Amino acid sequence: MQGKYRPFWLDDAKNVVVIDQTKLPFEYETVTLKSSDDAIVAIKDMIVRGAGVIGNIAAFGVYLAVREDSSLKHIKAQAQKIRKSRPTAVNLMWAVDIMMSKLENAQENLLQVALEEAIKISDEDAQRSELMGKYGCDAFEEILKTKNKKTLNVLTHCNAGWLAIVDNGSALAPIYEAQKRGMDIHVWVDETRPRNQGANLTAWELNESGIKHTVIPDNTGGYLMQQGFVDVCIVGADRVSANGDVANKIGTYLKALSAKDNEIPFYVAIPLGTLDFEIHDGIRDIPIELRSEDEVRFIRGLNADGEVQELKIVQDSSLSVNYGFDITPARLVTGIISENGICEANTEAIRKSFLREDNV
Amino acid sequence: MQGKYRPFWLDDAKNVVVIDQTKLPFEYETVTLKSSDDAIVAIKDMIVRGAGVIGNIAAFGVYLAVREDSSLKHIKAQAQKIRKSRPTAVNLMWAVDIMMSKLENAQENLLQVALEEAIKISDEDAQRSELMGKYGCDAFEEILKTKNKKTLNVLTHCNAGWLAIVDNGSALAPIYEAQKRGMDIHVWVDETRPRNQGANLTAWELNESGIKHTVIPDNTGGYLMQQGFVDVCIVGADRVSANGDVANKIGTYLKALSAKDNEIPFYVAIPLGTLDFEIHDGIRDIPIELRSEDEVRFIRGLNADGEVQELKIVQDSSLSVNYGFDITPARLVTGIISENGICEANTEAIRKSFLREDNV
Repeated sequence: MQGKYRPFWLDDAKNVVVIDQTKLPFEYETVTLKSSDDAIVAIKDMIVRGAGVIGNIAAFGVYLAVREDSSLKHIKAQAQKIRKSRPTAVNLMWAVDIMMSKLENAQENLLQVALEEAIKISDEDAQRSELMGKYGCDAFEEILKTKNKKTLNVLTHCNAGWLAIVDNGSALAPIYEAQKRGMDIHVWVDETRPRNQGANLTAWELNESGIKHTVIPDNTGGYLMQQGFVDVCIVGADRVSANGDVANKIGTYLKALSAKDNEIPFYVAIPLGTLDFEIHDGIRDIPIELRSEDEVRFIRGLNADGEVQELKIVQDSSLSVNYGFDITPARLVTGIISENGICEANTEAIRKSFLREDNV
Repeated sequence: MQGKYRPFWLDDAKNVVVIDQTKLPFEYETVTLKSSDDAIVAIKDMIVRGAGVIGNIAAFGVYLAVREDSSLKHIKAQAQKIRKSRPTAVNLMWAVDIMMSKLENAQENLLQVALEEAIKISDEDAQRSELMGKYGCDAFEEILKTKNKKTLNVLTHCNAGWLAIVDNGSALAPIYEAQKRGMDIHVWVDETRPRNQGANLTAWELNESGIKHTVIPDNTGGYLMQQGFVDVCIVGADRVSANGDVANKIGTYLKALSAKDNEIPFYVAIPLGTLDFEIHDGIRDIPIELRSEDEVRFIRGLNADGEVQELKIVQDSSLSVNYGFDITPARLVTGIISENGICEANTEAIRKSFLREDNV
């Protein structure tokens, strides 16, 4: 389990250490997950988040369950709890299914099997991330060439970088690849209310890598697109249905509408585990997580003394609501970038691209 | 100059007292404008904001200029500064033009003329507001009837209530009227980053009036529309071009796209002064205000001790940008509500509705 940037690792006692993503960017802290319940809390409370990493920590959660009590009864019960820890992110179910299938087929050494499989899932995600970077960056180069421009302006929403998917992210992978290739690139970073994963995580990642970027309110992207200041949009996803509808962080749909209205390519980058072949109408059938209102009502930042603090920004007498995701209909998606290349967002193209024999 | 709710009034010394809208909702403070420069600062710093009220305070600013020095040279110089205090809001220019025309034609008693005219502009706005309320609410009733629903769910962006346009606002006027008529109404209030005029001002107004509402992140509206949770959208505007393009708070365009995509009526409510007959292509020609980045980088709220405080929410190493408005193309607008009724958003319909003889 390697990689320059990875938001989790094993300590000497083989506990799982994760970067606490609720503390970034103003504090860097880690949390040590010693039990499967710790893993569940980490996922629920978004100490870890991002489609891929949720799946990774889910897999390690199963490993921790085995370590606690290697009876299949306990492992199954904990696996079930892990599956339910967040409803929209399908990588969670995907990773738990892989782990359980391995464990049910294993005769002995369950702990060893679980640990190796969890590591393998992450390492394979890293390979997928690298490939997404390459295919996505090829598309970026094509756009620059067609437009005959020097600088590529990319807009992204939420965080789909290495904090979300090892080792380079999904949506950010082509951006990191562009940097490697020496492309002149600038990223418009949607703040991404209510939890500000754009301002807090994507901007932090891009700062770490020295990539030019500008943090904007979520309201701003439409105007930028109207004015020709955006060449391409790229986002990750928490679940993509078999027909290409995309569940991603709330607000993604609005940017996709604006991209369409201004004829700007809108790409979605996902690893294999994000596809849900069971769902054929994402708008109707992908479950949307309803999270705590407090994420809307309070905001975290740095006070004048340089301390991290929370403020209330909605009056007590007002209601608020916090849906985690929306669905971008396939018709608004230019292409789905995966480890298998770029495919159109429709049932046939997705089947052809994702259901290769080695993946089935 | 009356009205139950008015965000400014005259004190005994005939200074202009305004509610400090940068302090709401957690603090209620007033600021006394004693000079035309005070008025300019109040407009620039958004102590007062909202299309109508900007125009009103601009008119009172001219009155204060007369009081300082009734030479036409001084008045003209200050009028010019007032005109430039915010670039997108056209009511500002409209109100200053009316004031200057009156003053240039007046032979004597300039101070009295200025004061009376400034009061008249506000009082006429109040009448316009009432009429917008009636016409808009008629449209609401029609929607309820067509859909055969009990509760009307309205989505609004930013603040276009009585803090913005005396005495009932533009976009909120039909909502206040609906309450009067006993309609069961619920308002989705867009937070409206970066300055949160939705959460801070619209929610405050609705709380004051006991109207049901829910504050949502700006990202949420698209999902709500996808799910059928929104029956109608209504917003105000800072400038509408002769062909019906709408400059309003940044993010409005994204909601209009989503309304169109989900076949939800999207109304824009404006008083006469918001129309700019000089501009025939709003997307190309309406100037968009670029405001301080600090409005994006810092946020104000209430700390655990109940004190108002600011936090930094963007890292120093990241850039940010703060465009105040975007343009919603006329094709996305269902109707423009004004004191003259509801008209379609196109050149001919707008001319017919707005250029009545008594208005020209």
